[in-house]
Amino acid sequence: MRVHVINTGTELLLGHVLNTHLTFIARELFPLGLRVERQSTVPDGAAIRDAMAAALKEADVVFVTGGLGPTTDDVTREAAAELFSLTLHQDSKVAEAIKLRLRTRGFPMTDRILRQADVPEGAEVLPNANGTAPGLYLKRNTARRTRHLFLLPGPPRELEPMFRRSVLPMLVDINKGAVAPQVRTFRIACVGESVVEEAVGPQLLALPGIELGYCARPGEVDVRVIGSAAVLDEADKIIKEAFAQQLYTTGDEDLEEVVVRLLAQRKHTLAVAESCTGGALASRITDVPGASAVFLAGFVTYANEAKAEMLRVTRTTISTQGAVSEAVARQMAEGAIARAGSDYALATTGIAGPSGGSDEKPVGTVFIAVASASGETQVHRRRFQTDRSSFKQLVTETALELLRERLVAEEGESAAA
Amino acid sequence: MRVHVINTGTELLLGHVLNTHLTFIARELFPLGLRVERQSTVPDGAAIRDAMAAALKEADVVFVTGGLGPTTDDVTREAAAELFSLTLHQDSKVAEAIKLRLRTRGFPMTDRILRQADVPEGAEVLPNANGTAPGLYLKRNTARRTRHLFLLPGPPRELEPMFRRSVLPMLVDINKGAVAPQVRTFRIACVGESVVEEAVGPQLLALPGIELGYCARPGEVDVRVIGSAAVLDEADKIIKEAFAQQLYTTGDEDLEEVVVRLLAQRKHTLAVAESCTGGALASRITDVPGASAVFLAGFVTYANEAKAEMLRVTRTTISTQGAVSEAVARQMAEGAIARAGSDYALATTGIAGPSGGSDEKPVGTVFIAVASASGETQVHRRRFQTDRSSFKQLVTETALELLRERLVAEEGESAAA
Repeated sequence: MRVHVINTGTELLLGHVLNTHLTFIARELFPLGLRVERQSTVPDGAAIRDAMAAALKEADVVFVTGGLGPTTDDVTREAAAELFSLTLHQDSKVAEAIKLRLRTRGFPMTDRILRQADVPEGAEVLPNANGTAPGLYLKRNTARRTRHLFLLPGPPRELEPMFRRSVLPMLVDINKGAVAPQVRTFRIACVGESVVEEAVGPQLLALPGIELGYCARPGEVDVRVIGSAAVLDEADKIIKEAFAQQLYTTGDEDLEEVVVRLLAQRKHTLAVAESCTGGALASRITDVPGASAVFLAGFVTYANEAKAEMLRVTRTTISTQGAVSEAVARQMAEGAIARAGSDYALATTGIAGPSGGSDEKPVGTVFIAVASASGETQVHRRRFQTDRSSFKQLVTETALELLRERLVAEEGESAAA
Repeated sequence: MRVHVINTGTELLLGHVLNTHLTFIARELFPLGLRVERQSTVPDGAAIRDAMAAALKEADVVFVTGGLGPTTDDVTREAAAELFSLTLHQDSKVAEAIKLRLRTRGFPMTDRILRQADVPEGAEVLPNANGTAPGLYLKRNTARRTRHLFLLPGPPRELEPMFRRSVLPMLVDINKGAVAPQVRTFRIACVGESVVEEAVGPQLLALPGIELGYCARPGEVDVRVIGSAAVLDEADKIIKEAFAQQLYTTGDEDLEEVVVRLLAQRKHTLAVAESCTGGALASRITDVPGASAVFLAGFVTYANEAKAEMLRVTRTTISTQGAVSEAVARQMAEGAIARAGSDYALATTGIAGPSGGSDEKPVGTVFIAVASASGETQVHRRRFQTDRSSFKQLVTETALELLRERLVAEEGESAAA
């Protein structure tokens, strides 16, 4: 089954609106063993009919989003009717539903709005629980194969529930007998994409029928493996052997979720002291629902005075070693533990740029400290040469990963003890 | 000039990654008088060559994103060379740049990485300031017209600066003589989209030849007006009359940039005390280059103990009024000023959810305090019923807007005095 998605809407091509439909539809289809082979965005108007005609030549299932509304630039319904040489007639049930919807909201009824009740003959209506325009389903049988055309509304809050309620059950039926592939994503922190591929690529590609993809994100690489259960198990072994330490999940968890979960499991608490990350580390941690069980406090000590005042970093250390130094990172982390009474602390101090670097400490230099109330403080020096916001992302990713590795190592020690 | 965009990447078609390139490219092109006519997403592999061939038949300018990296599924470079029957050769300058980049980062050099220095003969190299893979530009003259093919890296943090630095100047040259339309974006904080449309929509649409677009973001609405200089001036009057207070810029500045600029202009400083926003407010402020001139410190007091310890919120107030209360927000902001010695402070305390609400203070309730060392403390109560991360975004947007309005009002008073 070949699937194409056509997104209509001049606003998409003008860049006014981000297209989230492809992501949504692709994720919904995958468990059914269906994948989107191609997606295109076309402007409102005649291009819609041409794009539908081209897609139906190649694909078995075509989704068209948008262009079902009441305004003059909404022409998807008419384009589909024209393409299949069908006449449009007003569907009385749809018309009633639209009238009821407007009445309960106190909006006046107009001819323009009622256009949305026009249905090509033989089309199936997909009810819209969150708007006036229904979706439409058209089937076309030829000698060789059956083609399925779904017309869906543009607003995500209308399309998404309609897709789950009406489209998915129809697809299950259309697609019966297909075997859904299995996918597993291995998320590896703080290693470059090419290093990952070199270490595991050749071995993985030798597995029968494997499909392999790499996705580099700031501070991490995701390895996506598609294949049989046996292939996934083999891939698991290969990747775990190469990146036992840096592989932080094969599930859906983000790195901050893993860290919060590990801390919560052992009822430990965390504080953070941030200079160059400016609150971004605390913000990532507090993005996790339930973070309040482990996260006590964050100190965003941007000014030197704040480092001294809030974290008891000594002024002498700042003046002799500099605010961006191993000693200051250490004192910040230890100060955070002392002030917040937490079990662990992370501290960051660095030069995000674009200015402020020196020969000894160029822009992008950062010191990250991991401290625990009961153990020693480790300080790591790194350099990330990138823009300001990627710098913050890379430093927070590295800090979280350093803490995660420490928690896992301590877990190992206590299990061995 | 007809423009097509081809996005490559199986991860896009699997729905693992949201495609932000179309939005970015479309917005960058618009001021040049160029619009994207069509966009398509194709999987890694042979489909890339076919899509390029099809696009070059119709379009004058084709952008291809992704597939330039070091891994085996990166085949865009080879596909373009094959399509134009060009041989690839290693570009010594690019190879040197890659080697230097890896050396400064302490990464090992491999053949795979060096593949990225392969350039089709006659192609122009577009330097990549944020990654190893350069962009490539290929020109093809036929009797009838000239076609322009740009190959750009997939990661947005690499593509976006490259586009602005290298591609835009080339497009200006390619497109010379074209009349760019004028566009102005009015960014309005803390007002709903339908309220904005109702207030200014009919008047704006009456202007001759206007093109109007609304874009709702968390906590703000952007009104985009396209038209002649006279139309833009008229639109300016209409929108300023309706939203004098909430219109925070007609330029490119984000709200946090406006706030940092206003504080810097009058040499005032800021501290923040955050509970429910968990560092997100400090992080947005420190995203602005030069924030260190105005931002002294952030207190992320997630635990009640931290509010008492770090900000001297009284324990009685917490136990009688609750941690989410007007009194606690006030004490947090005033505590931040006292501890950091700043001129202004913002404080947030609220219930992000998904749990923790009550009848009196349901999930989504938040108190935002704006304090100044020389004036009174204002506390605002709001409710945002949304998911956790949108909640943080809405609260930080509102807090920044409240501070901006106060700074502007005080400016007016001191000017009047």
